[in-house]
Order: sequence, then C-alpha cells, then structure tokens
Amino acid sequence: MSHSVNINGNAYRWPERPVVVVCIDGGDPEYLRRFLADGVLPNIQRFIQEGYSTVATGSMPSFTCPNNMSIITGTPTARHGISGNFYLDTKTWEPVVMTGPELLRGETILAGFAKAGAKVVSITAKDKLRRQLGKGLDVSQGHVSFSSEYADRCTLEENGIENALEYVGMPKPDMYSMELSLFVLEAGIRLLQDKRPDLMYLSLTDFVQHKWAPEEAQARHFYQRLDDTFGRLVQEDIVLGLIADHGMSDKSNEAGEPNVIWLQDILDAEFGAGETTVICPITDAFVAHHGALGSFVRIWRKGNVSVQAIIDRVAAVEGVDLALGKAIACRMFDLPEDREADVVVISRKNVVIGSSARLHDLNGLKGHRLRTHGGITETKVPFILNRPLNAEYRKNVTYTDIKSYQIFEFAINGTL
Amino acid sequence: MSHSVNINGNAYRWPERPVVVVCIDGGDPEYLRRFLADGVLPNIQRFIQEGYSTVATGSMPSFTCPNNMSIITGTPTARHGISGNFYLDTKTWEPVVMTGPELLRGETILAGFAKAGAKVVSITAKDKLRRQLGKGLDVSQGHVSFSSEYADRCTLEENGIENALEYVGMPKPDMYSMELSLFVLEAGIRLLQDKRPDLMYLSLTDFVQHKWAPEEAQARHFYQRLDDTFGRLVQEDIVLGLIADHGMSDKSNEAGEPNVIWLQDILDAEFGAGETTVICPITDAFVAHHGALGSFVRIWRKGNVSVQAIIDRVAAVEGVDLALGKAIACRMFDLPEDREADVVVISRKNVVIGSSARLHDLNGLKGHRLRTHGGITETKVPFILNRPLNAEYRKNVTYTDIKSYQIFEFAINGTL
Repeated sequence: MSHSVNINGNAYRWPERPVVVVCIDGGDPEYLRRFLADGVLPNIQRFIQEGYSTVATGSMPSFTCPNNMSIITGTPTARHGISGNFYLDTKTWEPVVMTGPELLRGETILAGFAKAGAKVVSITAKDKLRRQLGKGLDVSQGHVSFSSEYADRCTLEENGIENALEYVGMPKPDMYSMELSLFVLEAGIRLLQDKRPDLMYLSLTDFVQHKWAPEEAQARHFYQRLDDTFGRLVQEDIVLGLIADHGMSDKSNEAGEPNVIWLQDILDAEFGAGETTVICPITDAFVAHHGALGSFVRIWRKGNVSVQAIIDRVAAVEGVDLALGKAIACRMFDLPEDREADVVVISRKNVVIGSSARLHDLNGLKGHRLRTHGGITETKVPFILNRPLNAEYRKNVTYTDIKSYQIFEFAINGTL
Repeated sequence: MSHSVNINGNAYRWPERPVVVVCIDGGDPEYLRRFLADGVLPNIQRFIQEGYSTVATGSMPSFTCPNNMSIITGTPTARHGISGNFYLDTKTWEPVVMTGPELLRGETILAGFAKAGAKVVSITAKDKLRRQLGKGLDVSQGHVSFSSEYADRCTLEENGIENALEYVGMPKPDMYSMELSLFVLEAGIRLLQDKRPDLMYLSLTDFVQHKWAPEEAQARHFYQRLDDTFGRLVQEDIVLGLIADHGMSDKSNEAGEPNVIWLQDILDAEFGAGETTVICPITDAFVAHHGALGSFVRIWRKGNVSVQAIIDRVAAVEGVDLALGKAIACRMFDLPEDREADVVVISRKNVVIGSSARLHDLNGLKGHRLRTHGGITETKVPFILNRPLNAEYRKNVTYTDIKSYQIFEFAINGTL
C-alpha cells in the first residue's frame, strides 16, 4: 500500500517502517537539559545528533488529556474539544468528565490508519486515557489498545491482547511507580518484535516528574531507564518520535509549602457564596501527587456578578498571570468556546490556583515540594526524532512554528 | 586570540572565521515558504539542507528598532530599553525619540568584540539605526559603521570609510528602493574581500515587504537578488546567520482599504479629549509605505480616567487582540517598565491601530494594500545558519525556545 491517508484534514503518507511516538508525560525540557549535559542519556543524545530535535509548543491548558488528544488527532484543542478533564454543564451546574470517547471530536490518527488497513497499537499508563486514544479502533481486527494500570485485566475482546503481564514479562506495576510508564515501553518493544504494527502510540505518566525535580537522583534514574528503552525501541528499525504533553514546574515557596491562590474563597468573599463556580480542570481521580492543583482554572458566573467584575478582582490577585474572558481566551489558546468558562485564569510559573482551601486534600504532598503544570510556562516541550528530516521538512521548519501535535506528522511525513 | 568575550552577561567564543549576520527587515516566513517551494532560492535552500534552520521568536513590539537592538545586544527589550521609536515623557507629555545611542542600555556585541581587539563592521539601510548599532565603536580603530541611505556622505572620521559609492561600485540607492538593501549587502561583500573583519552586521530595510506580498513578482525578484548576494557572501568562508526583525501581514479588507481602529477617536468620544494619549510607536520620519499604522500602540492616561476603564473600553473594540495594563504587558513581553505606557494595545493579524484619523496621512498607501507589523502575529521569523550546529548546540535546541536575538550567539558559539 502506498496511498496517503487523510485524517482531520491532514494528509499522511503510508509509513515505510513502523512509526512509534512516545509521549513523556510531564517531560519538561529541564530534565533533558540536565541529563544531556551530564551525558547520561546516550540514546537520546544520538537521536539529537543524527535525527532532528527542537522545542515545540503544546496545547493549552498544559494538562495531560488535552495534549494527548492533540497529539493523537494532530489538531488543536479547539478542534478535538477536550479542553481539560472536566467542563461545567451550566444546565445542571454539574462538572462533566471529558475523558469519554464520545466527547472527542474528529478521528484519531491511529483509527484513521486502521481504517485504511494499517495495524496500530495504543498503550497508555493510566486507564483514563485509554478509551479516547482507542476511539474507533476495532481490536478484533488485530489492533491493540490497553493501559498498564489494567494490564492484568486485558481481554482479546476489549484490548486485542490477553495475559499482558506474562506477554511483557513484568509484574503488574504499582499505580504510583515509574514502572507504570516503563511497562508501557516494554510492552511496545515486545509488540514491535512480535507483530510489527505500522503505528504505535505509547503514552507514559508523570508520577516521577510531579514528585522529583531534575536534580534528584530518582528523576535521573527514571530518565536513564527511559533512555535504555528508547535504545531498544530503535533497534527494531522504526521512526521514533519523542514528545511530551506538558512541562513541570516547582510551585512551592522557600519554606517548601505550595504557593496557592484559593480562588473560590477570594471570589466568595468578594461577591458572596454561590455567585461564581471555580473548576480546576487538572483534577482527576488520582490526585495524590498534585493535590488537584494546577496553574489553569475556569470560572463560571452563576449569579448576578458581571464577567468584568470577576476579571477585575482576579487580575488584582498576586501571582495571577492572566485573567481572560471566554472569547479572548479561546482565540489566544485555540480552545473550544462551547466548553469554555466565562473567565479563564492562568497563574505564574511558581504559583497554582485552587478552589476553596477546604476542598483540596494536600496530605499527599507531605514530604515533597509541589511540582505541577497547567500554565503557559509549562507549554514548551522537547520534540525529538531519531531520523533526520527530509528535504521538504527541513524547508518547512524555516517558516512553521512547530506544535507538539505535529509529532506524528513529522514522524510519518517528514523523516528520511 | 582564543579567549572568550563577555557581553551583557553572555560569553562569546573568539570567531575562527568571520561571522556575518544579515537582518532581513520584514522578512516574514511566508516569503520563504513560497519561494523555497518554487525552488528559486538555491543558496538559502543549501543553507537549510546543510546548515541549521528554524523559526525563532522576535521581541515585542514587532518593530524594527526594538528587534535590531535585541539582535545586536543579544538581550530582550526589557534589558536594552529600546521598546519602540518613541516613548512619552509624562513630565512634558512630549514623545521622546528612542533612536539615540544614549538610550540604549548595555553594550552591542560589535562594540564588545571591538574592545577585545576584533575588527567589526555595521552597515544599515536607513540611517536612523546607524548610531545605535554603532554605539561605542571607535571607527578610528579600523571599524566601519555607515548606512546606505547616507553612503554618499561617509567620512573616515564618522564612518571609518569614505567614497563608499565608488568603493562598493553602485550608484547611490533611492530611499524607497530594493537597492537600498542590496547596497548594504554588496558593501558587506566588498569589505569582507578587502578587510576580512571578524564580525559584521548587515541590516536591511523592509520597503519591499511593506509594498509587495509573497505572491507578487517584485517580492520574488528581491528575494532572488538577496539569495544571489548570500551565495557570494558565503564564498568568503564565513559563518552566515540570516534573521529578520519582524514579519509582515496584510492588514486590509476585501475592498483593499486598511482595517484601522482609530483608537484616540474612540477614547476621546468615550472619556473626552485630553484624557488619554495614544502613541503609535511604529512611527518614524519615513512613513510613506505604512501610514504610521501598526498593530501595537500605547495609551497613557492623562486626566482622571482609570486604567481599568481604558482597558474595558479598548477590549470591547472589534479587532483588538489584547489590552493589557503596564505590569502584565511588561511581564508577558519582556518590556522595560520605565518606558511603558499605562495600557498596551495589540491588534489582530489583519487589523492596525491608529491614533486619530485626521493625524494619519494614508495617501502613501494609494494603489497598494496596507502591509505592516507590530503585533504578536509578526513575531515569528526565520533563523538560518549556513553551517550545521555543533554537538553542544544540537543539545541546546532540545530544551531552549530560540529567540531571534540569539542569532549572533548561535553563529559565534553554536556552529561547526
């Protein structure tokens, strides 16, 4: 087959060799800066010398779901519609979880290629991403889609694979461990050797980056283990693309306590309870490592207070970077208007925004500094290919600002 | 000499061969996109294939003076202080021209190297840039600094060169001609052959890009002539860096008329005359080709109206992209607070902002569409080196977002 495949308006060539994209969740450029300088990542270093590398811009908010959906569809958030983990349904005033495939607009690159006859694989660390990444994939046709979180429950009917622990040869990884990510990569290597799929997406988790800064030994150990798996991946004669969904910043003060703006409390004090609703769309069911705190929140007006009054109050809060009305926020950050709040608030690099102090459980943070994401300061991510750009894409990079969601396009269309 | 030179906190190696940086004024990436696709720029195409190229981010506002000063000092606008062509002195309420060397903070890279014993050359198309680019250069020590605009008036005492027209072998170019830029490049080639300076900065003018879109024959002709001179420049065994100060966008409506927001008129109607002062800092003495219209203006409050009231009114104007108070604007765009207005206003890609309709002379625009710059949409510029990056800089680009003002650093420290 040598035809091209059209997915969400983008044309992709038929891959000559398997294309594997790894999303290093929370893979802030700072980790690479330090570990490459120390010379402890020989495989990534070789990709940089022999292939192509740059810093790309991710989607806002700099969260896991929006960016994974951007990467897997090749489109900005405004197109695929997944602008966080929640949006607020203003008919019921209930938060609606946005991790269901029915809320994802457009087709994934995996599903598009699968329909065209390719064999594809999607493996994710946490199960919450699995269903959207696997949207439109019929695993009875030889495709594989599962999470390492539920590796022990895989069935042929649901996942296209069974006995995954035995197949990969690793014990079931703990939910909060670096092995949860490493399992994804080992499974990818095994499937490459065994089935040689045309396209593969391997999406890790940012447990390590939330917990450990680049100067800590555990972070270095994790990156060395990642580098080792990348070396073994490229031994399978593939195009490898490395990307991250978002960066990761220290958000604590000198005393080691989180720099938090309790925004719902501030708004309630100013306008009265019930007038506004603050939603922290970083929240998910697994919040131990960041206390549901990020640098991007949404405010819906519920009572009589005006949008401008909200913006004025919020903009005056120390540590706020931007407070924007819906229209400007959507235009600046390519967000879907129908799922956007009345006001979008973004904090500065070292600050997070919460709802009410009483609603956040910060016990999970005890003993380590808060490291998290969500703001503009966490949108810059490494973009690395193990093979050099072809002539056409070497030209492209002189006039195109690269987005992280172009990693599949570059890996498929842009390499030698 | 093999020592390194420290300039404004950045360390530069001693160049092994001459380093030449060309600033293609108004060199929007769109021109390269089209002409490279058409295959009519063989030399630039070779640099892209054999050297290094990307899209870099320029300084805001996306005007000529701030970006030339960023490039020549290697620092953001907040450091060098030249945030436009004017600022308003609120003691006298008079605009102060910012093109004098005494207002430039820090040292130029040329002056730093000259002090360390290098021979340097600065040539600019328009004379308004010459004095700042030549700041701290003692031309009696063998350095050269002149403009093609005043090429017929060069003296050894003032410019380090005389009889420049004869020396270059071209007639004096017209102020509004592509030859004004080509003269700069021909002079550079001649000086390279003759004196082989260590460092050279060649800054062109955007007359062509203001006037002609990428699809017009004159623009193509200009770029082909540029490409020819670049080919002859690199025959001299140099490191060549190509950069632009800003992009260029069409700002007219379907009828071919400029999309203008007359902001002073709007503010006067809302708050009364004399309450606010709008400054269009793109303005200079030579405004025929853009009518002093750009996508970035400043508002100072003069009377009793509040900053928030101004922001509220401006943000409601169709075509405005951002209206920001001083503190946020300076933080977002790295601007110097002491020269910033109370409110900064940026328009969308296809819109410009003027002061009062009666104060702008649009006769110079007759017969062609308004193409100009100043906004966020004109900050992306090509960044091209004729030689490949060395190992250290190949690593750097995986974790550093590249600014246009790093072109000298990359050319001097980052190439093989």
